[in-house]
Amino acid sequence: MEKEREALQVWKERVGQELDTVVAFWLQHSHDEEHGGFFTCLGRNGQVYDHLKYVWLQGRQVWMYCRLYRLFERFHRAELLDAAKAGGEFLLHYARVAPPGKKCAFVLTRDGRPVKVQRTIFSECFYTMAMNELWKVTGETRYQNEAVEMMDQIVHWVRVDPTGLGRPQLSGTPATEPMAVPMMLLSLVEQLGEEDEALTSKYAELGDWCAHRILQHVQRDGKAVLENISEDGKELPGCLGRHQNPGEDLEWDMKLWWPHSEAMIAFLMAFSDTGDPALLQIFNQVAEYTFSHFHDPEFGEWFGYLNREGKVALNIKGGPFKGCFHVPRCLAMCEQILEALIHRLG
Amino acid sequence: MEKEREALQVWKERVGQELDTVVAFWLQHSHDEEHGGFFTCLGRNGQVYDHLKYVWLQGRQVWMYCRLYRLFERFHRAELLDAAKAGGEFLLHYARVAPPGKKCAFVLTRDGRPVKVQRTIFSECFYTMAMNELWKVTGETRYQNEAVEMMDQIVHWVRVDPTGLGRPQLSGTPATEPMAVPMMLLSLVEQLGEEDEALTSKYAELGDWCAHRILQHVQRDGKAVLENISEDGKELPGCLGRHQNPGEDLEWDMKLWWPHSEAMIAFLMAFSDTGDPALLQIFNQVAEYTFSHFHDPEFGEWFGYLNREGKVALNIKGGPFKGCFHVPRCLAMCEQILEALIHRLG
Repeated sequence: MEKEREALQVWKERVGQELDTVVAFWLQHSHDEEHGGFFTCLGRNGQVYDHLKYVWLQGRQVWMYCRLYRLFERFHRAELLDAAKAGGEFLLHYARVAPPGKKCAFVLTRDGRPVKVQRTIFSECFYTMAMNELWKVTGETRYQNEAVEMMDQIVHWVRVDPTGLGRPQLSGTPATEPMAVPMMLLSLVEQLGEEDEALTSKYAELGDWCAHRILQHVQRDGKAVLENISEDGKELPGCLGRHQNPGEDLEWDMKLWWPHSEAMIAFLMAFSDTGDPALLQIFNQVAEYTFSHFHDPEFGEWFGYLNREGKVALNIKGGPFKGCFHVPRCLAMCEQILEALIHRLG
Repeated sequence: MEKEREALQVWKERVGQELDTVVAFWLQHSHDEEHGGFFTCLGRNGQVYDHLKYVWLQGRQVWMYCRLYRLFERFHRAELLDAAKAGGEFLLHYARVAPPGKKCAFVLTRDGRPVKVQRTIFSECFYTMAMNELWKVTGETRYQNEAVEMMDQIVHWVRVDPTGLGRPQLSGTPATEPMAVPMMLLSLVEQLGEEDEALTSKYAELGDWCAHRILQHVQRDGKAVLENISEDGKELPGCLGRHQNPGEDLEWDMKLWWPHSEAMIAFLMAFSDTGDPALLQIFNQVAEYTFSHFHDPEFGEWFGYLNREGKVALNIKGGPFKGCFHVPRCLAMCEQILEALIHRLG
């Protein structure tokens, strides 16, 4: 027991120090002082190689900064709050393609003009997460109104009428919704309901619906989680039906940062729930691999793309799909879980 | 000289035999006897792992079969012609999303219902190539009418009004056309103009326009061919501006089959034009690597996706982007060039 406690303590310190350098990287390199919002296309040493602003990553970075500011004493600093607010204002001004319509762009120019629009709900979901967190740290109701209005629009698109997303109705498109949709919605239900009884109650039925939908994706006697299933909960034929996340990672013979950071969280959560030392051992194994292969000791943050042998394939620190989110979120969540575990062991 | 002639002769035989086994693979595994058209999602041994029909690949396979039937005595067989015609009828019936509108789907179900539509011209271009070749082998004017009408629609979308493609007009989207567009159009000008004086003359100005556009993409004092440039022919900032084809191949630390097959053609063409033995040497090097790493000695055809070290990463023989096109086209073109070279050497 004492040995386990020591191991947890060592990891808590390693994870905490890593979180410090990762946050420092984004604070130093990603802020657009001129237009607000964040650069996320950053090279190995932090230099900006593209000014495009991906709405997912803008919303996620606002959310991340607010969480750090709100939940970690050492990050309760004006620097983070001001940047989060500037990011929030950028989203409020520019994310929507044709206000007052709620459809958001997928990517914007540096000064906020829409470049591409995706016919899905995800830009809008990260917009909602950002606005809700901004409300939580500032108390300004205009942020929360934005969050709840956008949430209600998203739920309407998913459960009532998807027309506003702009997808053409084609006779050969299978009637299926990827698991990502109820997963994302459930995460929003949790986000909005956190310490908020009125919204917890408002979205309770939606949360149940999400959980039910997600569980339908567990197929083959519980041995596979399939991304796409039929309307009546059955496995679909072809590639669509076989698709598993993170499928791309396995198929393309590469090792990506985000399944590793998600695995760290998952095994630590599983150990926390069960106390099974085998799960802590797997966390240890994944985290050791991740810290020794993805972490960049020279410039900070993590590489995103290794080949199967663990060699760096792309040395960027940020891009269209990698921003100030997966890595700091993983480290912050692991630090919190480790702290609670240590506390529990007395 | 005699040694060079011998080397060319050896390659001609290797390439010819490889073409035979590759064509046999598609004849055996890809024909949909029930609905017409072709399965292109084929596993290592040819088994169909998805019934989806990608319009690019349907059109390309029709084109390929017609060329083989028309230009190679040993492929002048009813088996190829009948399959090409069945593929052509499938396209005539199902490729267009909303006939008489000319916009084609990107992918169809096995029985021809549209699954996805791309807001580009490429499905329509491969449709045109297929129809023109079907006319060349059958003499049926309805195929040629289809080809010319579709060609005129494509030119209208590119040079007059792109509205029909369905792309939203967004204020932040840079005014740029990828090099793929004039390259594809130039290839159609060549296809339609082959042994046809009236169409050669009709599309002469378009051919000049394409060549002019393509040459604008040669940037940095001739040292880089950039996929995207500004309207006035200058390099663009950011990732869009840096993009080079086959960029994905280099960036993602993998070796793909199609840049190798294209390189074989290019170096053999360059040797044929210049007689420089260094270019034949490079052809030799690329072809040796390709034959020893991509070729599957057990089940025939080529693997598409190797890792950087040359190990097979994905063992499929066909998928959404790999069908009966790059490999047989490469082998057929190389065989023709080698034959002409040998003939020239007397």
